[in-house]
Amino acid sequence: MTSTRRHILQAGLFGGLGNLLSSSHAQTTTVPAKRVRGIVFMVSDGMSHGVLPLTEALSQQTRKRSTRWWELLQSPGSVQGLMDTASANSLVTDSAAASSAWGGGQRVPNGQINVTDKGRKLEPIGVTLRAKKCRLGLVTTATVTHATPAGFAAVTPNRDDEQSIASQYLDRAEIVLGGGSQFFDPAQRKDKSDLFADFAKAGYEILRTRDQLLAARSPRLLGTFTSGHLPYSVDHSNDESLAKMVPTLSEMTDAALKRFLTGDAPFLLQVEGARIDHAAHANDVAGLLGDQLAFDDAIATVLATLAGRDDVLVVITSDHGNSNPGLNGMGSSYGRTNQHFSRIAGIKASHERIFAEWNAKKGGTAELTALVQERLGFKPTDSEAATLLDTMSGKPVPEWNHLLANPPGILGQIAGNHTGIGWTGTVHTADMTLITAVGPQAERFHGLVRNDSVHGKLLEMLLS
Amino acid sequence: MTSTRRHILQAGLFGGLGNLLSSSHAQTTTVPAKRVRGIVFMVSDGMSHGVLPLTEALSQQTRKRSTRWWELLQSPGSVQGLMDTASANSLVTDSAAASSAWGGGQRVPNGQINVTDKGRKLEPIGVTLRAKKCRLGLVTTATVTHATPAGFAAVTPNRDDEQSIASQYLDRAEIVLGGGSQFFDPAQRKDKSDLFADFAKAGYEILRTRDQLLAARSPRLLGTFTSGHLPYSVDHSNDESLAKMVPTLSEMTDAALKRFLTGDAPFLLQVEGARIDHAAHANDVAGLLGDQLAFDDAIATVLATLAGRDDVLVVITSDHGNSNPGLNGMGSSYGRTNQHFSRIAGIKASHERIFAEWNAKKGGTAELTALVQERLGFKPTDSEAATLLDTMSGKPVPEWNHLLANPPGILGQIAGNHTGIGWTGTVHTADMTLITAVGPQAERFHGLVRNDSVHGKLLEMLLS
Repeated sequence: MTSTRRHILQAGLFGGLGNLLSSSHAQTTTVPAKRVRGIVFMVSDGMSHGVLPLTEALSQQTRKRSTRWWELLQSPGSVQGLMDTASANSLVTDSAAASSAWGGGQRVPNGQINVTDKGRKLEPIGVTLRAKKCRLGLVTTATVTHATPAGFAAVTPNRDDEQSIASQYLDRAEIVLGGGSQFFDPAQRKDKSDLFADFAKAGYEILRTRDQLLAARSPRLLGTFTSGHLPYSVDHSNDESLAKMVPTLSEMTDAALKRFLTGDAPFLLQVEGARIDHAAHANDVAGLLGDQLAFDDAIATVLATLAGRDDVLVVITSDHGNSNPGLNGMGSSYGRTNQHFSRIAGIKASHERIFAEWNAKKGGTAELTALVQERLGFKPTDSEAATLLDTMSGKPVPEWNHLLANPPGILGQIAGNHTGIGWTGTVHTADMTLITAVGPQAERFHGLVRNDSVHGKLLEMLLS
Repeated sequence: MTSTRRHILQAGLFGGLGNLLSSSHAQTTTVPAKRVRGIVFMVSDGMSHGVLPLTEALSQQTRKRSTRWWELLQSPGSVQGLMDTASANSLVTDSAAASSAWGGGQRVPNGQINVTDKGRKLEPIGVTLRAKKCRLGLVTTATVTHATPAGFAAVTPNRDDEQSIASQYLDRAEIVLGGGSQFFDPAQRKDKSDLFADFAKAGYEILRTRDQLLAARSPRLLGTFTSGHLPYSVDHSNDESLAKMVPTLSEMTDAALKRFLTGDAPFLLQVEGARIDHAAHANDVAGLLGDQLAFDDAIATVLATLAGRDDVLVVITSDHGNSNPGLNGMGSSYGRTNQHFSRIAGIKASHERIFAEWNAKKGGTAELTALVQERLGFKPTDSEAATLLDTMSGKPVPEWNHLLANPPGILGQIAGNHTGIGWTGTVHTADMTLITAVGPQAERFHGLVRNDSVHGKLLEMLLS
């Protein structure tokens, strides 16, 4: 059945509305669906809606140009959708359940990778695809064994068991790029097995630095460029040694996509901007928007690489909202909003790095005030500095929203008075997420898309 | 030029992406645009993205059925877009500038209705349409002279000059329904003019109660059912006298649309769920979702009335985000989220009504605790009650987010620990807003839509 025919059947559900609804797309005719050679599935993890216009505004301010996602929204050839993101046990999903819905086809409880609430194991899409000679790639800025890549290639009741997840990738995913070398390293694994050696034996080129990635020549790659997650873009670009060692998301994506376009095998490439989520948990706007710009650069790379082709579908989305960052209207008639927002470009470090620097040297409120002023560009009041110090020391602080009674929540609010950015909490939200799709059969992602319907769509396209 | 041809020309802007983008909509062929007899332009004012899935969840919980907007998202015949909402002076618009962009075709500074930053007056769409014998209707739950309806039919440098706006509606808008009788009442107007009499002389039937609306027989209507804004739905449904006096948004919409469908004149009907915005300013989730359900009922009425027709376009959107309400993941693995959310259905009053009740009787923390417990269903801690009392008395309270250091912000946070709902502030945000369009030429609202492009789209459709 062509997807257009399916649409016409679905339209029947809307009874008396048939005329009104079909008049929107009067030009639709039944044609066979275009063949899909490959799919690039791009995930800005934990991206609430507000992130997109703020990234556009920052790009206009600092780069004098639009973001690629913003441009795609303006293209009549792109398809717009919204992802219904709930998990089996909650209106608010975590990344494990979300990626399992995409990769295993069923909603599972939070915390589990392709294991249902009844304990049944789902076959991850990477296994299904491999049996049909379809290639899988996983590219992320988190540990490669983090929940979102794991949902496409692993099964475990505990998302934190990243050592097990690392083992499961062997031969399932042909390209694995990101952070998390600790989970492959015999010295750090409980079972002492040397996964680097195992992957090398199976034909993977093992990469530990950006230079190695850029020089790699093998079709199969295992690249882990840090022990844990890759650094935030704002820290990466402000630290020469990091910039030298660690590739960008765009560079990793480029390496993976070019390999998959060689030869004729179908492929599924997941590209995750993972730390948009981490920055939202941390109520850290510079971390957030810096990584979203890096994600947008990866979109640009994908679209440039695919220019002139019509056989690769690109789906860009997120797995859930997180803390719903928004630029609040500041001042009378919101007239000081832009001034507040413009300060974000001057921020020199992620909150993660600020906390790490603090923990390395400690001190009193004067030192803390100096650190915040140096890194974030504003001077906290005495009361703010004292409260931040208290919460970092584990002392209770006055805070009415329980979810913000912690160092990220307090620093996020203090910084928000300076930048205009507010947050609903330090956790995921039930928001729908945006979907933009371009390429063959993109219309499958039009309108409301339940997260657990993605699995079937991907398989139908790749295996038909 | 047909809109399909325009799309093909636009696609040329994307250069090398032509193949990829056009392959999404391979079935598109050039056909003349369908004629648009009328447009229903529906605005959920200040609706951030999170409101839609939360309203759906509440509807499923309390009514055991889907919302109409949610169903529309699943229809292949509906068109999805995102509104770029900035104003002339700020990344964050107010409703005056937003409605002026729609109704006057140009971005103006916040606070102004169809007056540009240079002081130039824009012709509101109601004036343009009237010259072409096209009928305009304004239906809202705010005062009818509030910013969003005003942007379609009035010009003033000061949105708060609702007395002037009321005068300007005469003969420009043929149906005017909502709150705000004070602005038409000679006893309350500075100029002592009796606008009710003026409108009656011009053939309007003057309505002051729900019964009068339901019994009305004239084609022209001026209905103002309260002195100020209409009550929140949560208060309306919990107060028999209000329910008797004040019609629902759905009833007002029905009265307007049926009149416009009589005869052959083209029409533009704006329907505003105005107090979604007010509830967001108040960080009041029961006010918010109750009014969004009422807005959804109005959508249902419109779609049912239009069943079988193909000549009326329905556009459903919002003018800006507000406080970005989100359901936060609560408890370990977010496993207590649904339980928190389910408490919203038990809330018996809007925060506005709670504050009004409090101001009418006052008292100490014991009385305040009892009132909150009775109306919102949870018992604040002693510290919460004391802080709420302090902020209501104008005393400074400890609060790190400056935008929340006020009664709505404090009550919203305290309630949020109970319901799981968080807020970024008590003001508008820079978020894009959702657009869903069905009917002839709905594809004009696909993808990214700048708010100031709406004016041209509406005129092109209605006057061609």
